[in-house]
Amino acid sequence: MRAVCVIGLGLIGGSVLRAASAAGRPAWGATASEADATAAREAGFEALETDAALRRAKQEDALVVIAVPLPAVREVLRRIADVHPGAWLTDVVSVKDPVDFEVRKLTPRVRYAGGHPMAGTSASGFAAASADLFRGAAWAVTIEEATTIEAWREAAELALDCGAHVVPTGAAAHDDTVARVSHLPHLFAAILAAVGADGGPLALSLAAGSFRDGTRVAGSDPELVRAMTEGNKPALLDAVDDALGRLGAARGSLASTGGLKSTLDAGYEARRRLDALAGGEGTTTASVRLRPEALARLRDLGELGGRVTAIAEDHATTEVPVG
Amino acid sequence: MRAVCVIGLGLIGGSVLRAASAAGRPAWGATASEADATAAREAGFEALETDAALRRAKQEDALVVIAVPLPAVREVLRRIADVHPGAWLTDVVSVKDPVDFEVRKLTPRVRYAGGHPMAGTSASGFAAASADLFRGAAWAVTIEEATTIEAWREAAELALDCGAHVVPTGAAAHDDTVARVSHLPHLFAAILAAVGADGGPLALSLAAGSFRDGTRVAGSDPELVRAMTEGNKPALLDAVDDALGRLGAARGSLASTGGLKSTLDAGYEARRRLDALAGGEGTTTASVRLRPEALARLRDLGELGGRVTAIAEDHATTEVPVG
Repeated sequence: MRAVCVIGLGLIGGSVLRAASAAGRPAWGATASEADATAAREAGFEALETDAALRRAKQEDALVVIAVPLPAVREVLRRIADVHPGAWLTDVVSVKDPVDFEVRKLTPRVRYAGGHPMAGTSASGFAAASADLFRGAAWAVTIEEATTIEAWREAAELALDCGAHVVPTGAAAHDDTVARVSHLPHLFAAILAAVGADGGPLALSLAAGSFRDGTRVAGSDPELVRAMTEGNKPALLDAVDDALGRLGAARGSLASTGGLKSTLDAGYEARRRLDALAGGEGTTTASVRLRPEALARLRDLGELGGRVTAIAEDHATTEVPVG
Repeated sequence: MRAVCVIGLGLIGGSVLRAASAAGRPAWGATASEADATAAREAGFEALETDAALRRAKQEDALVVIAVPLPAVREVLRRIADVHPGAWLTDVVSVKDPVDFEVRKLTPRVRYAGGHPMAGTSASGFAAASADLFRGAAWAVTIEEATTIEAWREAAELALDCGAHVVPTGAAAHDDTVARVSHLPHLFAAILAAVGADGGPLALSLAAGSFRDGTRVAGSDPELVRAMTEGNKPALLDAVDDALGRLGAARGSLASTGGLKSTLDAGYEARRRLDALAGGEGTTTASVRLRPEALARLRDLGELGGRVTAIAEDHATTEVPVG
């Protein structure tokens, strides 16, 4: 099993380090945070300087995982370009097009496929990290023009070793999608929390499940949420415009006819589909042979909601929803 | 202990029936739904015709609880006016000003204080009802000009017997507040679910905790959500306008400077205050003697986030957040 070198040991990077290690892989990390380094060492892990961690990755032909917020990615890539420019590389950053762009520009020789595990908690830092964080979660692994099947497989196998399911996707499609299902929810949670707090102590006193659930992620570290949302500006603007259009239409309908039927029915139907998907209703299994030509096929399956649940020999087992 | 007659045996009414009975009160109900009547009878409860239930309420001097959706309230009040016009009366409908208006108009002789338990699940019907649904929840009990201390106490004691904490509040203040912390969250959940589903199967595949939590209540019966939200139109319009203003400002800031700091910081701060309140940090206890003059004082304490947690002899124990 290929060793893993994780750069950045916050909640996500720390959980990758723990999960990869629990899966039996040699694993070590690096972090600029004293608190995370201390927490990692107390948990029995090696937390090195970035250059030292990368030198060791070169010696052991490890998979390097970038697990820092988007604004810090460039500096990590510069270190990789200096120390280990031919690395096996993936990342767990929440946007994929901007990272792909920087990788091609700063480290053109790496063997790279981007990654993004769709898991988290409102806590942050290594102290909150868990080997089980990714169990059953979706983990996007990107397929671009320049992606090789070997680099894709390395990233996908890490995700599977962490207990996740792999969603093959293009970087731009990923970014459009997470704007809708991750970044807009964070923005909505923040706005909902603020509108509620505007109602004063009585509002917070009367707040129950719908408000509590709808504002949960507003409790996440706002600096991390900023890095995530601001780093996906064009796609997030599209999602916000879609939301503004729908909220404006609901407002207009409420003010005129007093009716919210179409808004509420659309939301109910959408949520029902999500529940059906989560319930695994009606999936079919496809086995894809991992040849270079397979990447386009995998990406198509991902678009249809397919997830790679296992890789054995040279085949990827993919579960695809029916209909 | 005063007997309880619950008109409407869905999730909320059914849970009141179960909780009141579990607290040792004689309790029976009425419902127009065959399914709810059957489920109630199978659970060992009496489910009568509305008129028969009200006649029995008159015989036993019971507290009548209206637990039907807002559009059906008027018809229940007409039955009360005919059968038992001097009833002790409360309700568990999600808006208070419109119910108060109808009560004053149609049943001017009832001894009434409005109620609204802030609890629920996305399930509906008696089959989903539970005696524990209200445990630890806030339960608004309204105080208007015409409210007597005796009627208020009857409604408050029912809430306490159901395991809830009583939030004393004016009807209009209640409606403004639930527009922010309950009705807007339902609207946001519906819009978020629809924007996510617009992203196709890939979006639902990549959806994780933030989307799941943010859309949970979109799975509620849309007809019940319609009755709730459309019945609170003026207050909900204000809350939607607040949300539209904030979302528009966030959009503008993202499009121009690219920054979401002020939006995210405001949301984080609001959520932090909610968590502090839920954690019971820094409360002080006030004991209020239940004389007629106490109602204004109780309403003031409710405005400050205070909750009545017990009534014994002629005193109400109220927990009020500090600072």
